[in-house]
Amino acid sequence: MYNLLDGLRIIEASSFVASPTAGLYCAQFGAEVIRVDQVGGGPDYHRWPVTEANDSLYWENLNRAKKSVALDLTQPEGRELLQALVQSVGQFITNFPADGFLSHATLAEGRQDLVTVRVMGWPDGTPALDYTVNNAVGYPMMTGIGPEPVNHVLPAWDLLSGAYAAFALLAAIRRREQTGLGSEVRVPLSDVAIGTVANLGGVAEVLHNNANRSRLGNTVYGLFGRDFVTKDGVRTMIVVVTHRQWANLIAALGLTDAVGAVEAERGVSFAKDDGLRFEHRDALFPLFEAAIGALDHAAMVTVFDAAGVVHSAYKTMLDAAHDSCLVGDNPIFSASDANPSGLAYPAAGAFGTIPQLQRADAKPAPRNGQHSEEILSEALGLSSGEIARLIDSGIIGIAK
Amino acid sequence: MYNLLDGLRIIEASSFVASPTAGLYCAQFGAEVIRVDQVGGGPDYHRWPVTEANDSLYWENLNRAKKSVALDLTQPEGRELLQALVQSVGQFITNFPADGFLSHATLAEGRQDLVTVRVMGWPDGTPALDYTVNNAVGYPMMTGIGPEPVNHVLPAWDLLSGAYAAFALLAAIRRREQTGLGSEVRVPLSDVAIGTVANLGGVAEVLHNNANRSRLGNTVYGLFGRDFVTKDGVRTMIVVVTHRQWANLIAALGLTDAVGAVEAERGVSFAKDDGLRFEHRDALFPLFEAAIGALDHAAMVTVFDAAGVVHSAYKTMLDAAHDSCLVGDNPIFSASDANPSGLAYPAAGAFGTIPQLQRADAKPAPRNGQHSEEILSEALGLSSGEIARLIDSGIIGIAK
Repeated sequence: MYNLLDGLRIIEASSFVASPTAGLYCAQFGAEVIRVDQVGGGPDYHRWPVTEANDSLYWENLNRAKKSVALDLTQPEGRELLQALVQSVGQFITNFPADGFLSHATLAEGRQDLVTVRVMGWPDGTPALDYTVNNAVGYPMMTGIGPEPVNHVLPAWDLLSGAYAAFALLAAIRRREQTGLGSEVRVPLSDVAIGTVANLGGVAEVLHNNANRSRLGNTVYGLFGRDFVTKDGVRTMIVVVTHRQWANLIAALGLTDAVGAVEAERGVSFAKDDGLRFEHRDALFPLFEAAIGALDHAAMVTVFDAAGVVHSAYKTMLDAAHDSCLVGDNPIFSASDANPSGLAYPAAGAFGTIPQLQRADAKPAPRNGQHSEEILSEALGLSSGEIARLIDSGIIGIAK
Repeated sequence: MYNLLDGLRIIEASSFVASPTAGLYCAQFGAEVIRVDQVGGGPDYHRWPVTEANDSLYWENLNRAKKSVALDLTQPEGRELLQALVQSVGQFITNFPADGFLSHATLAEGRQDLVTVRVMGWPDGTPALDYTVNNAVGYPMMTGIGPEPVNHVLPAWDLLSGAYAAFALLAAIRRREQTGLGSEVRVPLSDVAIGTVANLGGVAEVLHNNANRSRLGNTVYGLFGRDFVTKDGVRTMIVVVTHRQWANLIAALGLTDAVGAVEAERGVSFAKDDGLRFEHRDALFPLFEAAIGALDHAAMVTVFDAAGVVHSAYKTMLDAAHDSCLVGDNPIFSASDANPSGLAYPAAGAFGTIPQLQRADAKPAPRNGQHSEEILSEALGLSSGEIARLIDSGIIGIAK
C-alpha cells in the first residue's frame, strides 16, 4: 500500500480477473475503491481455489484493500442505487455489459464528466474469456512441442487487460482534469490480445512470411535461450540477451574453442548477433547440453552468477511460496490474518516499490456488504432510517 | 492514437518488451514519447522477427508513435546529454540499472520533482527475464499435460510489467501534481510475477494445502472449461462462467437428462456451483465429448451462439492475422506503409477504444536518431553549430 492515489475514489462493479485487478492496483496505490456486488456475492465470489468453508482465496486476494457495498442488482431499486453511486463518485471500473443499466450513456446523463473504464470480451459485446481469446490469436498452437495446442494456465490476457484498464482510467481522468470532459474507455480482451500480437511483430511477421512460426517447445525464439538439465537433474532456463552475456556464458562453460569451431564451419560469428545464435541452435545446443550436463546445479550457479549469465531453475508454485526471496523476506508481502476466509498467509501489496516512501502492509478484502451503510450514507446521503428500510427489504446487504 | 495524454512528454531509455510497451501505451494515448537509444540502435534493435534486410518487425511495432534520439551512451558526453534530457522533461521510463548513470538519485539532483518508472529483473538489480521469472514462480510446471515443464511463448510478465509501469507513471505524476513531490517507482518482473501468483490466490492455496495444484492440460481450473473436438475435427475451447451459460450449454447439447443422471448418482447439483462442475469433470467430460463430437463445427457455432455459450476454435497466428474481425475490419488496426522496414501491413493502435473520440491511425516507429536534432535543439537549447559538432564527433546520431 502506497498513497500515490490519495483522494481518488472509484466505484468498481466487476467480476473475475481483469476488471478486479484494475481496481486492485488502484487500491494498492491508495485509491478508495468501492466494489459493488450482488448481495451474497457476484459470479466470482466462490471461484476456486476455495477453502473447506467455500471461501474463495481467489476473490479475497483480488479484492484486497477495497470496500464492499452489497445491493440486490436484480431489483430496479438496487440498480438505481448503483447508478447513483457511480454518478456521485465520477470514476467507474466495470465489466458489466456496455448496453445495459450501466451503459456509459445512461450513467453520463446524471454525470456529464463521468470516466468509465469497461473491460469487455469482444468489442461488439459478445462474451469472451482469457482462454477463448488466447486460442483465437494463435498462442496455444505455438506453445509446447505439439502437435496439440497447449493453453496457458496464467490468465495473461485478463491480467494485461486489467493493468491496461488501470492505466486507461488515470489517462482519462488526466484528460478530464485538463478539459473538463468525461469519457468511456472500452478495453476488449480480444483487442488486447490481437493488438499485442501486432505490437510484438507477429502480425507483420506471419503476413510477410505467409507462414506461421515453427513450434519451438521451451526454446526462446530469435535468441539463445532454452532449458538445460544439470548433472544432478536440475532443469534450468538460460537466456542470453546481451553480447556480453554470450561471451561470459561460453567462457564460463569453457566452450570458447568449440563455439569457435562451429563459427568456422558455418562461416558466421555469434559474438554480435542474437539471431545467428538462434539460427544455428542445432549446432550450439549439443555443446551446451554436454557442458551443463557435466556440472552440478550448485556449481553451475556459482559459475553463472560470477559471469552475469541469466539463469533460473524450474520451481513449483509451492517451492515459490516457500522461497524467501520471492515471499518470506520480500517487502511486497506482509502477514495477513484478517482475511474473510479466516486463514493467515502472506499477502502481496503493490508490485511497484517506491524507495522514497514507506510501504504500508497489505489490507484484507472486505466481507460482502461490509461498507454498505458507511458508503450509502456518506456518498448518497441516505438516512439511517432509509438504509434500515432498504436492508429490511433486501435491497441492501450488510456483512454478517 | 487518441489524445488523452496531450501535453505529456516522456523520455524512454529502454529495450526489449516491458519498458518499451509502457512508452508505447502512453504514445498511443497521445503522449510525446522520446526514445533515446545508442547510436545505431540498442540491444533490441535487431531482435527477431527481422526482415531479409535485418530490420526488426518487433522493434518497429513496439516503438510506434515515438520519437528517436540517438546518442553514444558509451561516452561521458552522450550520457550527460541523456541525463540533461531526462531532467529537462521530468518524466522517465527506463530499464537501465538502478545504480548506474541513470539512477533516480543522480537524475533528481538536477530535477527534484522527477518521476522515474524503472522496470527491473529482481528488486536487488540482479538481471531476470520473462522466461526466468516465469519458471521461478511455477507456471511451466502447471502448463500442458506434463511431466516436463512447458514455457509460455507469450512474454506475459514483460507485458504485464509494461502496462503496470504505464499505470505507475501516471499515478506518480498525479501525486506530483498534488504534492509537488517526485518519486521513483521500481517495477521488478519478479515482484510482478510472484505478486500475481498471490493475487490469484495461488500463494494462499499452495500454503494452505501444502501441495501444488494438479496439472490439468487444457482444462480450466475450478470451473467447466476445456477443449473439445467437433465431428469435422475442429478443436474448440468452451468455458462456462455463469450459471445461465451452464443451463444453456446442457440444453443446447441435449444433455439435460444425462447431466441430471450424473447429479443423481453423485448426489450433487451443478446448476449453481462452478466448483462441482470442475470436481466431477470425470463424469461430465465424456458426455460433452460425445455430444460435441456428433456436431459439425458450423452446427455447433449456430447452436452455441444462440445459447450464449462462450466458445472459440483454435487458430494459428496466420489465421488470426487474416481474420477480418480481429484485424482486417478491426478499427484498432490501420494500414501502415511508412515503417522503417519498408514493409506495409496492418498496425495496431491503442487497445482501448473511446466512443466519444475519433481514433487516429497508428503512426510508424522512428528511424534511429530521426528526431535527434529537433529534440536536442528544442528541449536542451543546443545551437545548430553545437549539434553539428556533436554529430561530427559521433556523440549524436541522426537518421540516414
